[in-house]
Amino acid sequence: MDIVKTIAQVREVVRKARGDGKTIGFVPTMGALHGGHVSLMEAAGNKCDFVVVSIFVNPTQFGPGEDLDKYPRDIEADAEKCRAADVDLIFAPEAGEMYPDKLISWVEVEKLTDKLCGRSREGHFKGVTTVCAKLFNIVLPDIAFFGQKDAQQAIVIKRMVTDLNMPLVIKVCPTAREQSGLAISSRNQYLSEDEKKQAALIYASLQKCEQLVKEGETNSEKLIEAMIGKLAESPCIIVEYINIVDSDTVADIARVSGQALAAIAVKLGNTRLIDNIILDTTG
Amino acid sequence: MDIVKTIAQVREVVRKARGDGKTIGFVPTMGALHGGHVSLMEAAGNKCDFVVVSIFVNPTQFGPGEDLDKYPRDIEADAEKCRAADVDLIFAPEAGEMYPDKLISWVEVEKLTDKLCGRSREGHFKGVTTVCAKLFNIVLPDIAFFGQKDAQQAIVIKRMVTDLNMPLVIKVCPTAREQSGLAISSRNQYLSEDEKKQAALIYASLQKCEQLVKEGETNSEKLIEAMIGKLAESPCIIVEYINIVDSDTVADIARVSGQALAAIAVKLGNTRLIDNIILDTTG
Repeated sequence: MDIVKTIAQVREVVRKARGDGKTIGFVPTMGALHGGHVSLMEAAGNKCDFVVVSIFVNPTQFGPGEDLDKYPRDIEADAEKCRAADVDLIFAPEAGEMYPDKLISWVEVEKLTDKLCGRSREGHFKGVTTVCAKLFNIVLPDIAFFGQKDAQQAIVIKRMVTDLNMPLVIKVCPTAREQSGLAISSRNQYLSEDEKKQAALIYASLQKCEQLVKEGETNSEKLIEAMIGKLAESPCIIVEYINIVDSDTVADIARVSGQALAAIAVKLGNTRLIDNIILDTTG
Repeated sequence: MDIVKTIAQVREVVRKARGDGKTIGFVPTMGALHGGHVSLMEAAGNKCDFVVVSIFVNPTQFGPGEDLDKYPRDIEADAEKCRAADVDLIFAPEAGEMYPDKLISWVEVEKLTDKLCGRSREGHFKGVTTVCAKLFNIVLPDIAFFGQKDAQQAIVIKRMVTDLNMPLVIKVCPTAREQSGLAISSRNQYLSEDEKKQAALIYASLQKCEQLVKEGETNSEKLIEAMIGKLAESPCIIVEYINIVDSDTVADIARVSGQALAAIAVKLGNTRLIDNIILDTTG
């Protein structure tokens, strides 16, 4: 496994792999790798011949007052996990390699980004789409892998790729979870043991919602009420949003019919956590 | 020479050419091909093994009230010129192929686009950068060729490619001109014979500016005054802008030192015409 820091090096290594007839799988990350990332690397390894992981804490997707500075960084532990997951190449650029000059070109997806997490995280998705466009242009993968946990991100990236005819496929993989059901996230490191216990209520409330849908409840208002009720069992969880939305447009829906997304964002102390579940009335 | 209308066909033909070890040159156009386009095709043929020309009157770069509907279209004459210039492939999609759904993803270059033509043509460059990003992603050329006549466009596209790490090189080729000096443009078709004569004053005024720089004048205000004086010889030319700007940032400069751009936009009757010249004090 190579670890490279420059764009020129990535391009050279990938060009060689492609020259050997290999398909390229790509997992973009901000490091602090965990079971969720590992499951993406494994999916990439199953689908592609050559797996590239990028590790880059992208400053342009953090808003003012967000956790850019304290975001966890540990390249050696990350490299170990990549090696264990049979990754072929890590691209770990410095900020100066990705943004040598002040960036004035942006890729932006409208409409999908002003809802859910876009409401509270201004400019976040503009930073995400732009850095993903850059990384896709650098790595030129056949398939890029994203986690269902960041559901809105996956929807936005998919739309960007479709609208702009980017020559790759986006594959969204299931959310990896702790035993407790808590969605694995780099930000779980910020939680105390007690907070972790309470955080398990997020998935419990999504499961409650799923259960109600299975029992025939399709009214979004009632489903949201039930989720709020479940989360209220925690003394510390502050709900940022609970929405039931269309899985393509992220627009609120009054009734679940076919596929939909139940999505939650909460604050637990200073830590912001998100999770979601795909609802499906057809099966 | 093939003429194809779908993205899938372009990709297939280009993939085959690349598989044969050929380099890909690309000339994006809106059709109504003229000597300027032909010079780009020839430049592409000299530099690359396989030349792709796109012909697409892109609706998203026309503002309300602009000439989208009356913009000249003649695919057969265009194909003839491409054939004569040894083009290998024409991509001539319908609007529905390029924009099957409402486009909500955009590529935008800030700062460079709110000056010169960006002042009067709101949203124009956002349409240009987005369609170029789409076309680059479809054709995947090694080199794309643009004309110096649309100087600001070339500067903006170059910056987009750099900022977003797009895997191609932008080559800017000299402006093709009529005998009179008038920059060749598809919009010259709109001009009467008398207007054409007056339009020659645009280049004459740029040459005047160049001459003064050669004689040692570097004060932008004085150079602009001289150009205004020359244009005033026409009874019908209405100046939209005359600027002397930095050739990378398009910012106005008070004094010419090294390379700079003198750029003009005028209206002649209902027709908007632009032209520019590169100034160079270094010799």
